[in-house]
Amino acid sequence: MILPQFYVDDLIKKAISEDINYIDVATDYLLDENEVSTAKFIAKADGVLCGIEVAMRVFQLLDNSFNYKLYQKDGNYIKKGDVIAEISGKTVYLLKGERTALNLLQHMSGIATLTNECVKQIEGTNATIADTRKTLPGLRSLQKYAVTCGGGRNHRYNLSDCAMLKDNHIDAKGGITPAVAALREKIGHTVKIEVETRTLDEVKETLSAGADIIMLDNMDNDTMAEAVKLVNKKALLEASGNLTPERLRSVALLGVDILSIGALTHSVSAFDISMRMA
Amino acid sequence: MILPQFYVDDLIKKAISEDINYIDVATDYLLDENEVSTAKFIAKADGVLCGIEVAMRVFQLLDNSFNYKLYQKDGNYIKKGDVIAEISGKTVYLLKGERTALNLLQHMSGIATLTNECVKQIEGTNATIADTRKTLPGLRSLQKYAVTCGGGRNHRYNLSDCAMLKDNHIDAKGGITPAVAALREKIGHTVKIEVETRTLDEVKETLSAGADIIMLDNMDNDTMAEAVKLVNKKALLEASGNLTPERLRSVALLGVDILSIGALTHSVSAFDISMRMA
Amino acid sequence: MILPQFYVDDLIKKAISEDINYIDVATDYLLDENEVSTAKFIAKADGVLCGIEVAMRVFQLLDNSFNYKLYQKDGNYIKKGDVIAEISGKTVYLLKGERTALNLLQHMSGIATLTNECVKQIEGTNATIADTRKTLPGLRSLQKYAVTCGGGRNHRYNLSDCAMLKDNHIDAKGGITPAVAALREKIGHTVKIEVETRTLDEVKETLSAGADIIMLDNMDNDTMAEAVKLVNKKALLEASGNLTPERLRSVALLGVDILSIGALTHSVSAFDISMRMA
Amino acid sequence: MILPQFYVDDLIKKAISEDINYIDVATDYLLDENEVSTAKFIAKADGVLCGIEVAMRVFQLLDNSFNYKLYQKDGNYIKKGDVIAEISGKTVYLLKGERTALNLLQHMSGIATLTNECVKQIEGTNATIADTRKTLPGLRSLQKYAVTCGGGRNHRYNLSDCAMLKDNHIDAKGGITPAVAALREKIGHTVKIEVETRTLDEVKETLSAGADIIMLDNMDNDTMAEAVKLVNKKALLEASGNLTPERLRSVALLGVDILSIGALTHSVSAFDISMRMA
Amino acid sequence: MILPQFYVDDLIKKAISEDINYIDVATDYLLDENEVSTAKFIAKADGVLCGIEVAMRVFQLLDNSFNYKLYQKDGNYIKKGDVIAEISGKTVYLLKGERTALNLLQHMSGIATLTNECVKQIEGTNATIADTRKTLPGLRSLQKYAVTCGGGRNHRYNLSDCAMLKDNHIDAKGGITPAVAALREKIGHTVKIEVETRTLDEVKETLSAGADIIMLDNMDNDTMAEAVKLVNKKALLEASGNLTPERLRSVALLGVDILSIGALTHSVSAFDISMRMA
Amino acid sequence: MILPQFYVDDLIKKAISEDINYIDVATDYLLDENEVSTAKFIAKADGVLCGIEVAMRVFQLLDNSFNYKLYQKDGNYIKKGDVIAEISGKTVYLLKGERTALNLLQHMSGIATLTNECVKQIEGTNATIADTRKTLPGLRSLQKYAVTCGGGRNHRYNLSDCAMLKDNHIDAKGGITPAVAALREKIGHTVKIEVETRTLDEVKETLSAGADIIMLDNMDNDTMAEAVKLVNKKALLEASGNLTPERLRSVALLGVDILSIGALTHSVSAFDISMRMA
Repeated sequence: MILPQFYVDDLIKKAISEDINYIDVATDYLLDENEVSTAKFIAKADGVLCGIEVAMRVFQLLDNSFNYKLYQKDGNYIKKGDVIAEISGKTVYLLKGERTALNLLQHMSGIATLTNECVKQIEGTNATIADTRKTLPGLRSLQKYAVTCGGGRNHRYNLSDCAMLKDNHIDAKGGITPAVAALREKIGHTVKIEVETRTLDEVKETLSAGADIIMLDNMDNDTMAEAVKLVNKKALLEASGNLTPERLRSVALLGVDILSIGALTHSVSAFDISMRMA
Repeated sequence: MILPQFYVDDLIKKAISEDINYIDVATDYLLDENEVSTAKFIAKADGVLCGIEVAMRVFQLLDNSFNYKLYQKDGNYIKKGDVIAEISGKTVYLLKGERTALNLLQHMSGIATLTNECVKQIEGTNATIADTRKTLPGLRSLQKYAVTCGGGRNHRYNLSDCAMLKDNHIDAKGGITPAVAALREKIGHTVKIEVETRTLDEVKETLSAGADIIMLDNMDNDTMAEAVKLVNKKALLEASGNLTPERLRSVALLGVDILSIGALTHSVSAFDISMRMA
Repeated sequence: MILPQFYVDDLIKKAISEDINYIDVATDYLLDENEVSTAKFIAKADGVLCGIEVAMRVFQLLDNSFNYKLYQKDGNYIKKGDVIAEISGKTVYLLKGERTALNLLQHMSGIATLTNECVKQIEGTNATIADTRKTLPGLRSLQKYAVTCGGGRNHRYNLSDCAMLKDNHIDAKGGITPAVAALREKIGHTVKIEVETRTLDEVKETLSAGADIIMLDNMDNDTMAEAVKLVNKKALLEASGNLTPERLRSVALLGVDILSIGALTHSVSAFDISMRMA
Repeated sequence: MILPQFYVDDLIKKAISEDINYIDVATDYLLDENEVSTAKFIAKADGVLCGIEVAMRVFQLLDNSFNYKLYQKDGNYIKKGDVIAEISGKTVYLLKGERTALNLLQHMSGIATLTNECVKQIEGTNATIADTRKTLPGLRSLQKYAVTCGGGRNHRYNLSDCAMLKDNHIDAKGGITPAVAALREKIGHTVKIEVETRTLDEVKETLSAGADIIMLDNMDNDTMAEAVKLVNKKALLEASGNLTPERLRSVALLGVDILSIGALTHSVSAFDISMRMA
Repeated sequence: MILPQFYVDDLIKKAISEDINYIDVATDYLLDENEVSTAKFIAKADGVLCGIEVAMRVFQLLDNSFNYKLYQKDGNYIKKGDVIAEISGKTVYLLKGERTALNLLQHMSGIATLTNECVKQIEGTNATIADTRKTLPGLRSLQKYAVTCGGGRNHRYNLSDCAMLKDNHIDAKGGITPAVAALREKIGHTVKIEVETRTLDEVKETLSAGADIIMLDNMDNDTMAEAVKLVNKKALLEASGNLTPERLRSVALLGVDILSIGALTHSVSAFDISMRMA
Repeated sequence: MILPQFYVDDLIKKAISEDINYIDVATDYLLDENEVSTAKFIAKADGVLCGIEVAMRVFQLLDNSFNYKLYQKDGNYIKKGDVIAEISGKTVYLLKGERTALNLLQHMSGIATLTNECVKQIEGTNATIADTRKTLPGLRSLQKYAVTCGGGRNHRYNLSDCAMLKDNHIDAKGGITPAVAALREKIGHTVKIEVETRTLDEVKETLSAGADIIMLDNMDNDTMAEAVKLVNKKALLEASGNLTPERLRSVALLGVDILSIGALTHSVSAFDISMRMA
């Protein structure tokens, strides 16, 4: 698993603690705790799988004697009815872990599937789809990983690893040029500088100030087309804001490099997967 | 705030840690750390507000000298353009906290708004809207609270506080009747027993077994109408599964008591709110 | 183990950290760290065993190469001299874990034994023994589980999973009837409502208000007998307060359903068990 | 407060989290969250108070606007009916914190009171009462502090800060003398060495080996009297094991220095204190 | 403070917990807990101050009634005898916090001072001094912040925010060119790519592969001079390895952009500062 | 491993979390995650090894399928070129864990080596080398363990396990004699009392007051020689302050028992060890 084990384990423990505060009053009082079963994870729709190892880990953290077999892996396009995985172990833990495993798997696959739909929209262009910092509290790594499984790229992870200059930063130094210059004096050499622009004049100034990335914020297609010409590959161009599914392709065709979309992580629909006990 | 302070604070700290791993390389290197500003939170759509105190808390956890004024409170129906709150403090912390505050506020208001749309659908019936355990890892309290702000009710919080008998539980004891009986022998007197049913025969047996709540799982409206007659108020009836928005009212009119909807928490769209600095 | 693994592990780690802050200055400086031994856990009194798997887990968390064999399991009535379990592994960890394992095992068995004595007192009646929220900080799950091993039932786990109306709640709404009604409007359908009563008039009003459980708080036997008649099985009756061991049976015979006893968890004597190294 | 704030706060947060998992379904749904009240903490028995600041802290951690006034402080001997403290703040938090505050206060005062009874038993002798490592998981600091409030002394806090040689340590080096010698070679100069002895021969050897403290383990009074003579103040003598209340004074009068009693922390009865709202 | 409050607080709590496991047996047993004092922090050597707000925070976390006044701030060059800060509050907490405060302050100032010595060595050149990932566990933010106080810059914070290609990465793809190309296909647009090179051929290939930064690993000055010519400002050049103080200036004068030095954080001498109570 | 597993694991997880916030953008995007390699840890200098099991644990916490073989163990004197250990497992985790493992190993071996140099200086005398509480936040156990690997002894671990009387403590009670007496009344019988002295008069008073250890604080050799005579083995003598390497032997020869040196833990140079992949 690419995601760090500790992050995944902590998240799962947190989720299980929410779901089993004390005991499972139905399962613990009714089932024989030594009974063993097998369960299958089955797709109930078409889309991109993400989180299957995370889901399996839920059961192993409940009881380390679970064994599983994956028929599909993260990033695969799966179809309704596909068996994704099969897991065997104590029935009591299968029942206790089911909800948590599905909550994780369905959310991650929902993100991967949504991302993939966007990626497909712009197939054949030179643009790529990127996420944003508009993530849910505590789930950023999970969500950003799911974006990559859907074929998207990750924008900066946090406020430490890329500088994004907005109005307040620029005003504080009296303009884009002095702001970029002041920042270059202090910032580490591994950190890129991006500037949010709203007009072509700002694009021009940002380019000449030497920023690495120019964000075209909520611009219409015509303005963005001009920006692409102006910049002429001398900096990366990121389109952002109001990128509805219908509009994606037309923007990508303008020649921008990146389309960043908050909805990939802030407005996700669960992808339907069920667990069926044999 | 109804939500426990520790839960909220831990969640916010987690979210801020994700978003500011080390420092904010733009803000910390460019702004005067003593500059003070005021920011307004403004609705960009119509819906139900939820999480405004949580959002304000983000800034206070970054720096305890923030002051704020709320113009709207959780549960209020707000309109596009409404000023929700105004907060004043150090500009550096306004910038550092903005994304985290909005991520929380938009998610919570998204849930409250979605719930409210469902509640409105069934207005005038005797039914209520309830959530489920299909929540996102680490966010259950936040999400369940948001459901109540939208006018919904909370289903059981976890596997400890209500027994829900499913196939495996019933099979383990050889039927609904012995399963309910076995459970009553062990379960605390404050805990209700609910049974998932798929046929009218199961409804009948569940009723005579003395369960407190009968779940009608994925039944069509005609079957549910029969179940309502059969049960005749002697137990609570919960409709569950495939409750699309269009179908909600017709189901509620059948006379069931509760409609439980997973999408309230597993498929949420962010509600658009922006932070504008004066 | 019915108790969630994470809860148990966290508790044990906490306990071990208290007991071995840095190193064990006697054991680590004097013993060969590769020496292996076997230890027996032996009852030094008669009572109900509880926590033997928790105790074994202490050693496994210190070193994952321990093996053990249980001769008795939680809930068993054991006699002085009985060998409960045998565990083998590195001597250094047997010595380092002994105190922590015994502290847990003796406390849990103390609760189970005390509960069992109460349960025996009321054998043959229709009443059951229940615990309360009068638990020690951080130990609630452990303690409530021990109560069930002794044959008792669990009262509500916390303030979220059952509503208990006391004076302040009732006064806030102007009486038992409006308070119960107001609560039914908001509370989830899986949550029971209990009301504390001190007089027969309150019992009557609570019954007609439709509460699920009526607590008879510190009433004498005669008043409780009246309450039993009044309620006539239409709600659960819980006797609470001043339930000394001598009085238990007489109260149970009145026909109340539950006797809740704080002392089961707030005034526990350790049950004597020793660890003997072969 | 002598106890470290972080320890106390963590313990309280843990306890509150156990008791309010999500919300208080009675209080949060029925009370006006702005209502303010005052509550008094009143002794229901005679004994030694311990934990009043810890109890007050519970409310402040729920809401930082609470104010309180202490009429008694930790270590005071209080009588039934005494008002210990008065606290004012939001009623909702008084109700939410009551159980947790009392659980802590009653347990700590229970320990202080029990310790104090032992201390009184041996008044006028040269001996002191000490606790042991037989504490409840997570509560060691709280419990050891309570022992000091009752007039007792603390034995070693953990396995790192005093070496206690038992059979296995001694056998590993072939006897008390070589074991003490081997340990002196390695142990820090601030750490005392204590040896468990069961016979007068062992006492003699321990003394000549240069141990700082000699534990007289489960000896009868006559043997201990001999040990006192033998050692003649050249090392500290600690009586341990089977020190029932009735026997304490006779043992203390023999001239031993310390009587260590596990029951002070492993078999505690809650001391009755109530919270009464004005 | 630029460093996130939570990070600093957690670190301080950890440090205090190490230093005050239970109580301070000297201070808590001997001092009047209400006595108030003032303490001065005084430089005992010349160097760059770092961590004074962190040090002050130690006392505020012990007791929130401390007040302090700073005479110097982080990044200032201070001289032996300078009064850095003055803090007033309860004597017991001044004594309990002293060691922890000094441990933090002396380590951070040690790093700032060492960094500053390196920065001074290369004054007037176009090069900058950078740190590395060779930090002490748990202290990375603290240490990297201290480097910036000394006038250095931060290299990448972790493995997520800049790609550094080493032998294994390059071999996995069959060379620098295909490795950089493969990475560009996947990596986020905000992340720079750096390649470790050991020969001029590698430098050439890295440049043409389009890497953002070229590390010159353990090269001699002549080879680096060639690399500077070759690259001719088309990528950033980072000298690394064996950069002893004496060699720094000669390397900087070659025209490389960055000199990265592990010793700034892995081999630090405490800078002497004392706390003197008035 | 003598160090408690939980402490070591928590520290490593903390360190890895710092170093891999999300993913390793080079390794995770370029390497085949199933590839397996072997790496050797090789000494690049002469000194005392410490932390090799801690370093190996880093990899096992990343992936539990690593196997390793130790050729040297903690406390061994190793020479440049020595192979210390060989570890095999997935290449991706070898690359991800390398920096963290080396950071720990080099710091711990740096402390052990520095301590060992001091120990060698005083070989043949009756004195021993001890550390202090001048440790880095979060690393105290690690650092104190490393001191013992280098042949040093541990001074008190924290403020709870040995009382050290300084000016404020003494002044609070009006002198050394009353301070020691007051403390004996309260302190546990397992805790030693040490007093800081600056003059021979103070040494005398401390001795007659019955302290266990007398610290000779920043005294010159002549004064210390007098102190040794005065005390004549009736208490332990600890020399402290300004103990430069050159001065160590002369001080040890005076007859003091302990030389405590803060630099062992506050001013450590990393000991050079490299990881080489086969």
